[in-house]
Amino acid sequence: MSVAQRQTYDPRTYQSLTFHDAVVRFRDGSDTPRAYLERCLQTVEEREPVVRAFAARNDEAARAAADASAERYKAGRALSPIDGMPVGIKDLLETRDMPTQMGCEAYRGNFPKRDNAAVWALREAGAVVFGKLVTAELGGNHPGPTTNPFDPSRTPGGSSSGSAAAVAAFMMPAAIGSQVGGSIIRPSGYCGNVALKPSQGGINRGERQSTSMSTHGIHAGCIEDMWLAAIEIARRAGGDRGYPGLCGPDVPPEAERPLRLMVLETEGWAELDDASKTAFTMLLERIQGAGISLLWRADNPLIDALERSIADARTVATLITAWENRWAIRNLVNEYPDGVSERAKAGLARAEAMTHQDYQMLLLHRAQAQAAHAAAAPLADAAITLSCPGPATPWSGDRHGEPLAPRPTGDAVFNTGSSMLFAPCVSMPLMSVGGLPVGAQVVGLPGQDARMTSVARWLLQNLDPVIG
Amino acid sequence: MSVAQRQTYDPRTYQSLTFHDAVVRFRDGSDTPRAYLERCLQTVEEREPVVRAFAARNDEAARAAADASAERYKAGRALSPIDGMPVGIKDLLETRDMPTQMGCEAYRGNFPKRDNAAVWALREAGAVVFGKLVTAELGGNHPGPTTNPFDPSRTPGGSSSGSAAAVAAFMMPAAIGSQVGGSIIRPSGYCGNVALKPSQGGINRGERQSTSMSTHGIHAGCIEDMWLAAIEIARRAGGDRGYPGLCGPDVPPEAERPLRLMVLETEGWAELDDASKTAFTMLLERIQGAGISLLWRADNPLIDALERSIADARTVATLITAWENRWAIRNLVNEYPDGVSERAKAGLARAEAMTHQDYQMLLLHRAQAQAAHAAAAPLADAAITLSCPGPATPWSGDRHGEPLAPRPTGDAVFNTGSSMLFAPCVSMPLMSVGGLPVGAQVVGLPGQDARMTSVARWLLQNLDPVIG
Repeated sequence: MSVAQRQTYDPRTYQSLTFHDAVVRFRDGSDTPRAYLERCLQTVEEREPVVRAFAARNDEAARAAADASAERYKAGRALSPIDGMPVGIKDLLETRDMPTQMGCEAYRGNFPKRDNAAVWALREAGAVVFGKLVTAELGGNHPGPTTNPFDPSRTPGGSSSGSAAAVAAFMMPAAIGSQVGGSIIRPSGYCGNVALKPSQGGINRGERQSTSMSTHGIHAGCIEDMWLAAIEIARRAGGDRGYPGLCGPDVPPEAERPLRLMVLETEGWAELDDASKTAFTMLLERIQGAGISLLWRADNPLIDALERSIADARTVATLITAWENRWAIRNLVNEYPDGVSERAKAGLARAEAMTHQDYQMLLLHRAQAQAAHAAAAPLADAAITLSCPGPATPWSGDRHGEPLAPRPTGDAVFNTGSSMLFAPCVSMPLMSVGGLPVGAQVVGLPGQDARMTSVARWLLQNLDPVIG
Repeated sequence: MSVAQRQTYDPRTYQSLTFHDAVVRFRDGSDTPRAYLERCLQTVEEREPVVRAFAARNDEAARAAADASAERYKAGRALSPIDGMPVGIKDLLETRDMPTQMGCEAYRGNFPKRDNAAVWALREAGAVVFGKLVTAELGGNHPGPTTNPFDPSRTPGGSSSGSAAAVAAFMMPAAIGSQVGGSIIRPSGYCGNVALKPSQGGINRGERQSTSMSTHGIHAGCIEDMWLAAIEIARRAGGDRGYPGLCGPDVPPEAERPLRLMVLETEGWAELDDASKTAFTMLLERIQGAGISLLWRADNPLIDALERSIADARTVATLITAWENRWAIRNLVNEYPDGVSERAKAGLARAEAMTHQDYQMLLLHRAQAQAAHAAAAPLADAAITLSCPGPATPWSGDRHGEPLAPRPTGDAVFNTGSSMLFAPCVSMPLMSVGGLPVGAQVVGLPGQDARMTSVARWLLQNLDPVIG
């Protein structure tokens, strides 16, 4: 891949692909969902050879769905505001018309003929299910082939690699991703998307119930499409079993100016490169310039307590997830010894060294962090931090005979804290560093998904992005 | 099946099959796990043609596991107190050496080569995985072929039909069941077993994460085997994702005399037959005779509030579960239109008539019932009620052209309340009515599994069973 394919990202001029504003043209007949899809397919043709976002496609099924949507608009009977929206599906979620291979050799050719609850809901809302998107193996950190749309020598982030890249490459206006540690928000930060990682349990995971801290979420080109895709799923399929599920208005929440934001350093700040530190500091100055107060850990012991409670979130989240996945991975390794990566096997070994009591202690740690969040959150309208530790990191594949790179899809160090807090997060493309996107995120208490969307919308509409 | 095969159940003389007391003979060489298993197989040969508890068997694998266990005892290296224990597995849980067909035509021949987390834990503890046991279809209420070991014209209860019947027929000392509404405690009550339905999340459900209120639990011939099987699983595989899991001693909890018991009528009392009412009233009199105080809803408004909060538990539990299963069942019906029973399809229709908001209201109802339980529970050491609405009901199959019987495996009316409370329950074979078993259960707050086991043990050791 040539360096010539690198595109400099400028958040001031970057025009993402949007859908919500096309609907009016579907209604007046000057555009159709099928024509929209064809434009997406044209972009896929141009960019997919380098970006490699897709794990599978069924263009025929997508075209048929788009045609059916066009008929509905013609008849004045659109099913929802996302009728006709092409939406890609992370390849961890089952789809009845495409294989589900989870980026894992052991699942090669796996093709259950059924739809995940969220996929089912998208179809019920009239959306055009458009392809399966590359996931890091089993949602972990062993990467697939996808490259960063702004620089093919870099990772798009992971594990929702294809979801982030397909949206950033204008291949589709929205895509479903999922996050355990940082798999939605980090790639959205690396790729210049907006994204919603809902409160834990916000969107029905269907058969993907393997862990206690993963959620489905949305990557999109704009906040309107992000919200509409999320709420239309939740209206039909609800949240996870036992959770109330994503709540909020049927229309995108209005922009709402926050009075106070709490700045979270997280584990990531100490490890952050200087250019990204400078860019984020400039962003905070612009926030203050807009009359919004900022609170840091030094300002209030409750914020400091929250920071301390998530200071080792990366380890806590990794081990909780390792334990929760151990039986599934053990079964997989037993049946397909060569079908699972060395990275996944190393995670299994960590899990199998744990005891039940170790896990109970980690759950206590998590519950205490959530208590600290509940105590600190009322101090501000939202917390703010980076979405990712600077711009996307270079990645050119494992080298035979060398130790495995620990984090080929980048570091979730700014994400595991909020994941562990079960917090809703909205990622905002508000910075560039060295010509590459770097996101910032707002983080709320569980249930505040609509509120975080309103705050993010206000910041996106009112702040000048930072060029660092 | 002839009425001659009916056996009158007398809880005063009934001798269940036990395992914990055989271990000493394994150690001194006067018995072996293989010989124990062969005795079980002999019983299976005699009784299985009528009882029909098994959905699948792999006697070769069971014999090999028993031989390996015998070798360990010989070498003085038993893996746990349940090393060598034959344990049957409800056919909802995956087993790597037998098919998993879930009592559902659509899953005929389904044979994933993997172990459910609890099955894996049993093997790690040295237990002999002994057959797959009949479940009502998909854990619902469409029955399999199993008959009640005391009267083949009656249901063994469900959905853990084979688990309850196999233990009651002396085919094995313990079996894994699972309960959403009443699928462990009701069949144990109908079959004269002891059984533990743990606190919600108590035992790792592995891939069986489809609902927010189901648990794996244990049917056994005695309380020692019940506890040992449960705790040895939890020590190795823990609880569900995000739950601390079953906690308690490595040995069976000591019998502990309660000072006060709270009598719960539940929705079931009004519908109970007179003979069973009389028997339970006699049991309560014996409890009082042992110096234990009883509290009823008339004694305290908190108990009355708890009763009111679970007064429509059967409907609430049914609808919560219907919603949570709707995508899985819809996918199944779409792919196998003739592979799912009319009963399951009727449940799907109910689910598909629900909205996300309906489900949220049901969750609120459940959370409020749990709050009422938390408020009332400190008034007593445990709650007590029946395990089942009288003796097992007759069942001779659906009749072509007639409406489907609504509850062919009996009514969960005494169980849905405690399921909805996420409460640990221990069923005790303390009554017979008309020559058939009727169980009573103690019910605690979530986490009090060991305490309920202690209370049940005391009652079992100190009360004369009631012959009604």
